[in-house]
Amino acid sequence: MTDYTLHYWPIQFRGQFVRAVLAHVGASWNETGFDDIVARKSAKPAQQPIPHMGPPVLTDHDREFSISQMAAILVYLGEKHGLVADDLASRAMTIKLIDDANDVLYEMTRHNGAQQWTHEAWTGFQPRLQRWMVIFEETGRRNGLTEQSGFILGTDVPGLADLVTATLWGTMTSKLPALRPMLEAHAPAITGLCDRVGALPSQTELRIKSDEDFGDAWCGGEIEASLRAVIQEPNAPGSS
Amino acid sequence: MTDYTLHYWPIQFRGQFVRAVLAHVGASWNETGFDDIVARKSAKPAQQPIPHMGPPVLTDHDREFSISQMAAILVYLGEKHGLVADDLASRAMTIKLIDDANDVLYEMTRHNGAQQWTHEAWTGFQPRLQRWMVIFEETGRRNGLTEQSGFILGTDVPGLADLVTATLWGTMTSKLPALRPMLEAHAPAITGLCDRVGALPSQTELRIKSDEDFGDAWCGGEIEASLRAVIQEPNAPGSS
Repeated sequence: MTDYTLHYWPIQFRGQFVRAVLAHVGASWNETGFDDIVARKSAKPAQQPIPHMGPPVLTDHDREFSISQMAAILVYLGEKHGLVADDLASRAMTIKLIDDANDVLYEMTRHNGAQQWTHEAWTGFQPRLQRWMVIFEETGRRNGLTEQSGFILGTDVPGLADLVTATLWGTMTSKLPALRPMLEAHAPAITGLCDRVGALPSQTELRIKSDEDFGDAWCGGEIEASLRAVIQEPNAPGSS
Repeated sequence: MTDYTLHYWPIQFRGQFVRAVLAHVGASWNETGFDDIVARKSAKPAQQPIPHMGPPVLTDHDREFSISQMAAILVYLGEKHGLVADDLASRAMTIKLIDDANDVLYEMTRHNGAQQWTHEAWTGFQPRLQRWMVIFEETGRRNGLTEQSGFILGTDVPGLADLVTATLWGTMTSKLPALRPMLEAHAPAITGLCDRVGALPSQTELRIKSDEDFGDAWCGGEIEASLRAVIQEPNAPGSS
């Protein structure tokens, strides 16, 4: 029997955080197609397994429990599979980092495409994007993270917070390589963490499969086109 | 000694969720002013007690632990003070409802004021706002919530999820009364829950104090002005 079903668009973006955890714990899962997602998110809440506005939605076939919202799905999986330390502060910090990551995703897509990127808007956003990188870097540094070793919350093994951090910054900079120099400059320890977590067999295998399945798409849609357009401008900040 | 310090703007909005929990558990807290918030959010992450982009930030003086992100603060307080049931599904559902609430706050403010409301945008948003109400209503109905009794996750006493739900919809419709008929029409059981939780002595006292401290402000700023302008249009959907 398959352990889980992930309902998410055929792109990396928010869904990749869930896939990274499923892959890390060795769970089996299947994903349904674009049409299924549209049908599910358009259904009346009374007809939805979990009343929700949009994907991702995860179904745990152990108990046929469905849950939406990236942070809720990740904490559910992280706690079920022992990836979250069992003290109040670590649990709160894990949720904090997930919601920071979610805010970065909102801001990188101008709130899921509510507006498109312009050169002016992108230029104005650079200091803020760099500050987000520094926020993750400083969090890791306080917990002993270095370029060569450690994990963002000071654990001995990678936990949910590390998978989230590596999926956010690692996936973004591998799909949008022009941003990698900015990450290296503003968050060298986070860059190292992304590379170490990304080198785990489960994550390497996932990346290969996701690249096959989703190609170069990161957030997808018109917003990705406008994002790539501004990043690629020869004199755009953060372009390589 | 004061138990907590809440760093948030002098408005209700996201900070009110934290105040509602602090008031419910009978904790003592103080709040710092507008200038302190500006100084804290502008400081280099290395100088911040918790590296963060913006408020709310809560400091627990028990252990001088500071945490940012509304969901992380609420789960930290909820777990510390016994307001979250101790099973995976209830904990995940609590985080799901908090992040649903946070999405509603983003959407009601066009993402913290990234754009201002126009009559056309507000009209187009009505079905989505109503759907958010139905999502909360359906969640409660599945757990035995009625107009007269019950709590959103089926507990015997109000928990974190109920305080969050009542603060989201109760505060929004008391500060923006033109939206109350929409809530009554699309989420009658949630309306009842908001009224019952709002009638708890701790919440009544908090509401009186917050109204004194913050006046009519809900989200504040230009975005509140543009929101009130479209809501008050005589033929605006949702206007009373």
